[in-house]
Amino acid sequence: MHYLLFAAALRKDSVNKKLINLAANKLQEKNIDVDLADFAEFDMPLYHGDIQVNEGIPAGAIEFTKRMQQATGVIISSPEYNFSIPGTLKNLIDWVSRINPMPWKKQHILLLSASPALVGGNRGLWATRIPLEGCGAFVYPDMFSLASAYDAFNDDGSLKDASLQKRLEDMLGQFTEFAAKNK
Amino acid sequence: MHYLLFAAALRKDSVNKKLINLAANKLQEKNIDVDLADFAEFDMPLYHGDIQVNEGIPAGAIEFTKRMQQATGVIISSPEYNFSIPGTLKNLIDWVSRINPMPWKKQHILLLSASPALVGGNRGLWATRIPLEGCGAFVYPDMFSLASAYDAFNDDGSLKDASLQKRLEDMLGQFTEFAAKNK
Amino acid sequence: MHYLLFAAALRKDSVNKKLINLAANKLQEKNIDVDLADFAEFDMPLYHGDIQVNEGIPAGAIEFTKRMQQATGVIISSPEYNFSIPGTLKNLIDWVSRINPMPWKKQHILLLSASPALVGGNRGLWATRIPLEGCGAFVYPDMFSLASAYDAFNDDGSLKDASLQKRLEDMLGQFTEFAAKNK
Amino acid sequence: MHYLLFAAALRKDSVNKKLINLAANKLQEKNIDVDLADFAEFDMPLYHGDIQVNEGIPAGAIEFTKRMQQATGVIISSPEYNFSIPGTLKNLIDWVSRINPMPWKKQHILLLSASPALVGGNRGLWATRIPLEGCGAFVYPDMFSLASAYDAFNDDGSLKDASLQKRLEDMLGQFTEFAAKNK
Repeated sequence: MHYLLFAAALRKDSVNKKLINLAANKLQEKNIDVDLADFAEFDMPLYHGDIQVNEGIPAGAIEFTKRMQQATGVIISSPEYNFSIPGTLKNLIDWVSRINPMPWKKQHILLLSASPALVGGNRGLWATRIPLEGCGAFVYPDMFSLASAYDAFNDDGSLKDASLQKRLEDMLGQFTEFAAKNK
Repeated sequence: MHYLLFAAALRKDSVNKKLINLAANKLQEKNIDVDLADFAEFDMPLYHGDIQVNEGIPAGAIEFTKRMQQATGVIISSPEYNFSIPGTLKNLIDWVSRINPMPWKKQHILLLSASPALVGGNRGLWATRIPLEGCGAFVYPDMFSLASAYDAFNDDGSLKDASLQKRLEDMLGQFTEFAAKNK
Repeated sequence: MHYLLFAAALRKDSVNKKLINLAANKLQEKNIDVDLADFAEFDMPLYHGDIQVNEGIPAGAIEFTKRMQQATGVIISSPEYNFSIPGTLKNLIDWVSRINPMPWKKQHILLLSASPALVGGNRGLWATRIPLEGCGAFVYPDMFSLASAYDAFNDDGSLKDASLQKRLEDMLGQFTEFAAKNK
Repeated sequence: MHYLLFAAALRKDSVNKKLINLAANKLQEKNIDVDLADFAEFDMPLYHGDIQVNEGIPAGAIEFTKRMQQATGVIISSPEYNFSIPGTLKNLIDWVSRINPMPWKKQHILLLSASPALVGGNRGLWATRIPLEGCGAFVYPDMFSLASAYDAFNDDGSLKDASLQKRLEDMLGQFTEFAAKNK
């Protein structure tokens, strides 16, 4: 039993990478194995129907699908772009959805978001639920949205706000319990 | 006064290309000038914050912005992918939104969709409104969703269903009136 | 183990009542007990903060909560009003959400919709997921949307389209398995 | 030329009433007439198809429609309930949408929200756009969301945060310009 984790951000200094690292650490502290991936490992072009027909599904989408299917669940930390899902993450969902049978079906997914804004990345996560649930995934109802993220982390990677840190840990505990039971 | 039109699909035989061609023809019949673009003209990588910092906004996003700002309004025909906006179209919105001042602000946009499904691409269009309106665009309230699109067109590019064809023409008339008045 | 079922429609001849009756019959055929409620049993005023303070939670919301908490899961068949959730169903969600602790949390919910339109009531169901999931419910990813509902039923209450009927039965089976396992 | 304003909240001490009062004052300072309504003036039962058939559209929905149609535009300040539109406001939209021809069509609407939460009521406003735009209304792209509203107002009804106050005034100016030009 292990979990696949990644931040849906390519930038090196992404706050979503910090948040997913924190989530990975917390799982490992509870002796839960993690496959902590970098989004760049799942490199793929913009979706193009003719590429699919002529060259097949890109290697990055196949690699992601394999890693997801080996895991008990997936934890994604995603930025919000323009009140919605990043085009990059949607592009991953779109390519993976072209694999048959539908790889997202019955996968267990927890969504996190870190944002420099006061409002957090919550609206982006709501937009992310729709294609995932539409593809049949069990997206955990609770989601974690970290606002003002540039100033949210201690040097050791934990959150300065202890109640937020506890909320994240509780959510990870509840999600992994749900995924393990329901799988 | 002219309109920028494109189908948010890269595939050569896209039904959204057929639909945007029909829209372009109908505008031209009314002596309205069109800039009928191919989505591939706006080629750009997946959004990557480090690329933005190190290499700047990609040429495709700059070209799109220039063409949009010269036009009175924009008409997009987009497929629906997984109940939502295509990653490719969202990626265009994301890159363009990084240009300052915000290029989408106060642009007039009409959304069309063609889909082989019975349900049409309506849910994808609703997901497309959010980032565009969040960026300040006037997205026309009415949207046109063509269902069963593989069998919807006559050989001359018009719609077999005359009432649908009239609905499209009326919507184009109302949208261009709105954009011209409000610009 | 039993399920609470209701149609979120007050009208006597509602197609959503027909659909929820069919769902109830299918569960009973598999020896699963049902509590088939009428939406009118959960009568309550429009939400009003002063009523909550002065008179407390209305009896209909308390009754609904009790019945939901006794059940393993809830199945709702809801019409779509204006591309979204009916005000009546949202009003029920709002009142119930004022009860402490949050009654929706960790409830298992399956959403169905019947609509006279060609498109079905799918967009309304997507709008219904948001408040339920926001309140912590496990809303089953798959949803059943019956289009052209005035002409969809046989006299015995089954669906004329055998593949749709099978799809409904399969979804009921998968949902009840999920709810029973995860509860 | 005048505007219809109301808070979609029945509670006497609603922060949305404070916000709509502020908006009304700002319009009047610019010599724009306002029809500042109380939500309770548009009293109506929960939507019920049989009531519509047997008793017709309720007086509150007819009154609202008359007042809206006399105005150049409508400004609504609405709370967010459970990440979405209040059932009460949706119920108004639903009843009014049953009047023929569709009263919402081509109405100009600006959405505001006040919320005691840090996040503001922004998600509720996004859920409110959908039925209004689906019914053909021009919902202004920019929306105003006031967070931490219990502590946001001065005794004279203005906002403590001068930059927020300016943002509201600018938005009112841009919306009324848009509505007057496009009407």
